[in-house]
Amino acid sequence: MKILRLISLLMLMLPLAAGAQNKEAELLKEAQGLFEPIDKPPVKITDNEITPAKIELGKQLYFDPRLSSSGLISCNTCHNLGLGGDDGLPVAIGHDWKKGPRNSPTVFNSVFNAAQFWDGRAADLKEQAKGPIQAGVEMNSTPELVVATLKSIPGYREPFAKAFGKGDVITFDNVARAIEAFEATLITPDSAFDHYLKGDQSALNEQQKRGLKTFIDQSCASCHNGVNLGGQNYFPFGLVEKPEAKLLPPGDKGRFAITNTEGDDYVFRASSLRNIAITAPYFHTGQIRDLRDAIAIMATTQLGAKMNDKDIDDVAAFLQTLTGKKPTVSYPDLPPSTAKTPVPVQ
Amino acid sequence: MKILRLISLLMLMLPLAAGAQNKEAELLKEAQGLFEPIDKPPVKITDNEITPAKIELGKQLYFDPRLSSSGLISCNTCHNLGLGGDDGLPVAIGHDWKKGPRNSPTVFNSVFNAAQFWDGRAADLKEQAKGPIQAGVEMNSTPELVVATLKSIPGYREPFAKAFGKGDVITFDNVARAIEAFEATLITPDSAFDHYLKGDQSALNEQQKRGLKTFIDQSCASCHNGVNLGGQNYFPFGLVEKPEAKLLPPGDKGRFAITNTEGDDYVFRASSLRNIAITAPYFHTGQIRDLRDAIAIMATTQLGAKMNDKDIDDVAAFLQTLTGKKPTVSYPDLPPSTAKTPVPVQ
Repeated sequence: MKILRLISLLMLMLPLAAGAQNKEAELLKEAQGLFEPIDKPPVKITDNEITPAKIELGKQLYFDPRLSSSGLISCNTCHNLGLGGDDGLPVAIGHDWKKGPRNSPTVFNSVFNAAQFWDGRAADLKEQAKGPIQAGVEMNSTPELVVATLKSIPGYREPFAKAFGKGDVITFDNVARAIEAFEATLITPDSAFDHYLKGDQSALNEQQKRGLKTFIDQSCASCHNGVNLGGQNYFPFGLVEKPEAKLLPPGDKGRFAITNTEGDDYVFRASSLRNIAITAPYFHTGQIRDLRDAIAIMATTQLGAKMNDKDIDDVAAFLQTLTGKKPTVSYPDLPPSTAKTPVPVQ
Repeated sequence: MKILRLISLLMLMLPLAAGAQNKEAELLKEAQGLFEPIDKPPVKITDNEITPAKIELGKQLYFDPRLSSSGLISCNTCHNLGLGGDDGLPVAIGHDWKKGPRNSPTVFNSVFNAAQFWDGRAADLKEQAKGPIQAGVEMNSTPELVVATLKSIPGYREPFAKAFGKGDVITFDNVARAIEAFEATLITPDSAFDHYLKGDQSALNEQQKRGLKTFIDQSCASCHNGVNLGGQNYFPFGLVEKPEAKLLPPGDKGRFAITNTEGDDYVFRASSLRNIAITAPYFHTGQIRDLRDAIAIMATTQLGAKMNDKDIDDVAAFLQTLTGKKPTVSYPDLPPSTAKTPVPVQ
């Protein structure tokens, strides 16, 4: 009798379970329509063929502090591959301990962004790489100094020849191309969310799925979609409600400085949310350290939505599933300077 | 007839060749009496058992910029494993872009030094590691801040437990122990000179052997001997002739500041010469960039010897053979900070 009762109870529950299953399947389908998983490398770049020699050279250059005029700051200083591909600081600290104007974005998956920098002023990673090398508050060098330095180091001749062929190939453009090639390998596949998008519904737990649903229902995915959950388009920070001045200092008008177009006041590129849980602090000012606070601010300023604590916890739990697997990088051997290498500027 | 002539000619040359061979064998024997090759790792440290877990944790800490108060400077900033285990700068640049008082010594093979720092003020690498972390002009942190930072990072709990067991093991002492364990792996065996010392006479060419002979005959090896060709003892800089003030600024009295003993004025630890060709600039002031200049200065100030250009070239050629094989280091994954992690000091 007990068994019969159990069976009839289970049969009563079946439609309920089927309904839940349908909802689960719907959520997955909706997510698959909005987002894309990361495929395994190599990523292709149309105007810069990615070769092993270019990647290897790019890795050396990425870690070489001699690309800065002081000889102390490398790409990895602010885009630290051991951390979240960033520096974990509010704003970058560079040459002469000067503070940069904005928070350093992560290098991980940046190859998937439509454009680089908070204001999208660089079309690709090649162009991006040239910026910080020359910025006075970052690496403070010049194309001429970079080339003179690299040419003074005999051990760079072969890596450049392997990557770019014979002739005068130690050029600033090729430095940028090699760095872009290396950065194209800095992607983080295999996050829980990637597995989910590929069909493994057990990759997210109940709370994370609730968070995903809230994320979609509250229209977070209007800006944060695609393979990078962001990084594709520009939006005013304060679309619905202007954030406090700490988060949006009047002096930094974002994309306006690039386009000089009225509507671009305080417009910034929507950040990628991949690895967001390990890339605090948040926003272009880097003033927010807690992911939950960042979610609440986005809800208020961009969506005019009131999220309660549970919603915020759920979305934060979902965002945790975007932390992917960092590539293994062996620390490069950097060829030694010579007495002819330009003297570092201190 | 021609063959007979050739044979008699060869027979005439035999004693000559035998004499040269004897001289070669003598030089090798002399070298083997003065120097030691590097054995393969692991190195043993009596009061700090080197375990894989300790090495792995030590590597994380070595590369973690959050050991500095700014969150920007790691051990690797000034002791860069991609370069010569140093920064290639005259003197270190640290927190707030302050210049340190002396040139950063290489971390490679430092485990073989009798004591650490230019003045030997740290008995071992454990003690050494604690110095720069706390120095205001370097990483500018405190033991309390380091421990609070590491304790705020959940991902450090397991590595510390694996390395040091259960309980309150996230301590400043254990940070130093782990770093020492990692640094004990940073040795560079397999230099040409190591192969030579192990009996392979073809590992050095003629010029390098001449340089070795000059190095021994001119008494360079009086201070630069043993496995590290230096690093074992203290000597006045300017034993025979005082170097110019650029190289020996009156304000830095070296070991005197530690021992407060009259004879220790301007006394410094003889540097290890391993990897000397890739660790310019030279001396505690880092004012000399060319190895040949450094050799000439040593000859004059320490030995009262006049070396001609050929001698200097020969010794420089010999010193090139001390460049060993750097260990392969995979860049560590550093566990993410949390909102509870102390705010970096900028």
